[in-house]
Amino acid sequence: MSVNNYPDGRAARSAMRSGDLKTPTAGLAPGYVQANLVILPQQYAFDFLQFCVLNPKPCPILDVTEPGSYQPSREWADGADLRTDLPRYRIYRNGEITAEPEDIREYWQTDLVSFLIGCSFTFEEALLAGGVPVRHIECGCNVPMYKTNVDCKPAGVFRGPLVVSMRPIPASLVSRAVQITSRFPAVHGAPVHIGDPGSLGIMDLDHPDYGDSVPVLPGEVPVFWACGVTPQAAAQAVRLPLMITHAPGHMFITDRLNAELATG
Amino acid sequence: MSVNNYPDGRAARSAMRSGDLKTPTAGLAPGYVQANLVILPQQYAFDFLQFCVLNPKPCPILDVTEPGSYQPSREWADGADLRTDLPRYRIYRNGEITAEPEDIREYWQTDLVSFLIGCSFTFEEALLAGGVPVRHIECGCNVPMYKTNVDCKPAGVFRGPLVVSMRPIPASLVSRAVQITSRFPAVHGAPVHIGDPGSLGIMDLDHPDYGDSVPVLPGEVPVFWACGVTPQAAAQAVRLPLMITHAPGHMFITDRLNAELATG
Repeated sequence: MSVNNYPDGRAARSAMRSGDLKTPTAGLAPGYVQANLVILPQQYAFDFLQFCVLNPKPCPILDVTEPGSYQPSREWADGADLRTDLPRYRIYRNGEITAEPEDIREYWQTDLVSFLIGCSFTFEEALLAGGVPVRHIECGCNVPMYKTNVDCKPAGVFRGPLVVSMRPIPASLVSRAVQITSRFPAVHGAPVHIGDPGSLGIMDLDHPDYGDSVPVLPGEVPVFWACGVTPQAAAQAVRLPLMITHAPGHMFITDRLNAELATG
Repeated sequence: MSVNNYPDGRAARSAMRSGDLKTPTAGLAPGYVQANLVILPQQYAFDFLQFCVLNPKPCPILDVTEPGSYQPSREWADGADLRTDLPRYRIYRNGEITAEPEDIREYWQTDLVSFLIGCSFTFEEALLAGGVPVRHIECGCNVPMYKTNVDCKPAGVFRGPLVVSMRPIPASLVSRAVQITSRFPAVHGAPVHIGDPGSLGIMDLDHPDYGDSVPVLPGEVPVFWACGVTPQAAAQAVRLPLMITHAPGHMFITDRLNAELATG
């Protein structure tokens, strides 16, 4: 089915809810903000929200539901149901993946709080529009992601390393990449590090901790952005009795345009 | 005592802690980020933090303490004590102001959570540096602030109108004011409204709800920014058993530079 059948977030969510759409979401509903989803019991919600606000570059919070509600804010996704409107989820019990369902209604509890967290798809669209190539899109694979030697600020039970994504950028375009992504502070913003993997404790770019490796060509510089895997990894490490997330690449698609998130 | 005796946040905090400095903080420790302070019982902390993250323009969270801790993050203010390091506080009991002490050690409870929230002093410094006049500073008074007909997104027990501050800007400099303040999304960012008080429900610019009125001269446009009074007013309306804030104009001075908060 062509991605052109889903012109906006509402159409894509509707097709996911009915079970007609089960694919990864890259390229769906072009121009619309896609988000990471993390769902936790209310007991851990303050600590997790504190972790996110203390570490805003890797954990940019877009929306938080009331405890027990599976409806995001109307501005983000009018009429959406977070239990059915993603193509695939991951269920974690005590930190272990126990299922990857297409629907989480049977897992729902009245004490769950849902967090929508910004995703790099937003700034990648802007990079491409600004003439900056994005290697993993060219390669048709996942972005490479690395645990770093930088600790996030801890909050309550949550702690862990900053996870970064890496995109190789031609040296002449690195400034432009900084300028473009600086306009999106709500979705990771400017790079956290440019050009020296070792000082982040990354010893081998060819072996990312998450995602796929991509080639860094002569004349290119590895550029590192804070990554939304950071809060999910911190939450998984706590081995909560229940945590639910989107399955990798199977994001929540909102009603808002990427361009709306740009500052300046 | 000259403000030049306090070259940075640490020096100013030290003088406040010893009781030598009890003045409003405008102009102290030039270049350093000043913050609003809100302290609430832990029972309300998730709801309040959710209110802030759902309404980031009026409620830009800079830091959140662990429950019971009066120490902000080291990056924001190394060695600071939020009970003593502001020049003056306000104590609210059931929504009413009951005291304005210079020290809150006697009010401290082990269940209190402290929130540092961004303040317009940061972007006003940038406006002045960029050649944009700031009327209330010229007048030596407080910025005028208005309740609007725009509701904040509610969270738990917290709800209330967006409160905005108004600065009259010469028409030829309005774009520049937008550009400059857009660089500071962590402290209210770009204006929320430009040029039409009535559409915010503001019927009389000469009678602000908070602060002082200032003249709007011929050729000037009223420009409205989201205001940090918003979360404080929402919290006061709940009539919590205990809430502690900074006294108006008596802010918390951090160790970080305003320039560090600029994006792009």
